[in-house]
Amino acid sequence: MKLYDSKQAPNPRRARIFLAEKGIALPTEQVDIMAMQHKTAEYTAINPLQRMPALVLDDGTVITESIAICRYFEVVQPEPPLFGVGPKEIALVEMWNRRAEINFFANVAAVFRHLHPAMKELEVPQVPAYAEAMRPRALWFLQFLDGELATREFVASDRFSVADITTLVAVDFLKPARLTMPEGLAHVQRWHAAVSARPSAKA
Amino acid sequence: MKLYDSKQAPNPRRARIFLAEKGIALPTEQVDIMAMQHKTAEYTAINPLQRMPALVLDDGTVITESIAICRYFEVVQPEPPLFGVGPKEIALVEMWNRRAEINFFANVAAVFRHLHPAMKELEVPQVPAYAEAMRPRALWFLQFLDGELATREFVASDRFSVADITTLVAVDFLKPARLTMPEGLAHVQRWHAAVSARPSAKA
Repeated sequence: MKLYDSKQAPNPRRARIFLAEKGIALPTEQVDIMAMQHKTAEYTAINPLQRMPALVLDDGTVITESIAICRYFEVVQPEPPLFGVGPKEIALVEMWNRRAEINFFANVAAVFRHLHPAMKELEVPQVPAYAEAMRPRALWFLQFLDGELATREFVASDRFSVADITTLVAVDFLKPARLTMPEGLAHVQRWHAAVSARPSAKA
Repeated sequence: MKLYDSKQAPNPRRARIFLAEKGIALPTEQVDIMAMQHKTAEYTAINPLQRMPALVLDDGTVITESIAICRYFEVVQPEPPLFGVGPKEIALVEMWNRRAEINFFANVAAVFRHLHPAMKELEVPQVPAYAEAMRPRALWFLQFLDGELATREFVASDRFSVADITTLVAVDFLKPARLTMPEGLAHVQRWHAAVSARPSAKA
């Protein structure tokens, strides 16, 4: 089994934090996105979509998409549960992971991909007007989340889950996207300090 | 329990097809997106993100995001399995559902949202250049999928899954987005005819 990982990119970090929370160590190969290594023929044979990360199982099966990799290990090693337990919590974790992805992470990524000079050769064409349209949506989500985190410890429930991992990675991606956390979000700040202090956040 | 549904929109259709495959019938309330009913104070109290569909459980818990609703029912009623069985198939279904969402459905939706005159008041601002940039990516995915469907019956494996539901809904959304299926995709055509012939496709 081998994990193709990119230290600089946010999606592989989701898989790395998840694995750290599970206490799972894997052989890893680094793929340098800024050096376009994910566009080589060698990596394209592994993932034709040229996206990171990718997990190759012992039978040769390739699993791409960070959350699909996480889900593989959730089934193989259920403890500690990171996708919820029981129908209601499982649905709430899926809901909050998706809310964080669609309404926040994707919008932060859009600002980075469509405005940052470093992405000029990776996001073709860059559409700055799209980044500008998504910027207020990314920041709105943090306001919304602040009200939610007033009522519970973590993003989806009172248990740490993959929804916290997605949200943490997206918050930490504000800086490369040159976005600033709005002031006064006391509950988001409390939550961010707590999840950043977990050893897995360094993964 | 009640499902807030919108007959015109593609995401609620994912939940309806899923429920039909499971043989589950639910009390349903229609929310007319074109009449902006998802932006009313009443619906915003149910889903502050003003997106469809939403499921309200008997204890008042609200589950939004079509796939989170699907996952709730997968746990409550595992048969027939629509998210895979065992770690490898579960990971492949998650991977293909996400590939279909991120690389295809989202791009078809971007073309619809950012170009279609009917979306002028719902997608503010429309960014036509973004739609034009996403259009070739949506069509590229169908070419890629054609090669994959040459090797197996359904999108993720030889078993019908939620990845087929997402892909079917996205293919059927080409028409409102004024996109045309590329010619010569024999395997996609075979698959589309088969999944469209299932009774659930009418849901």
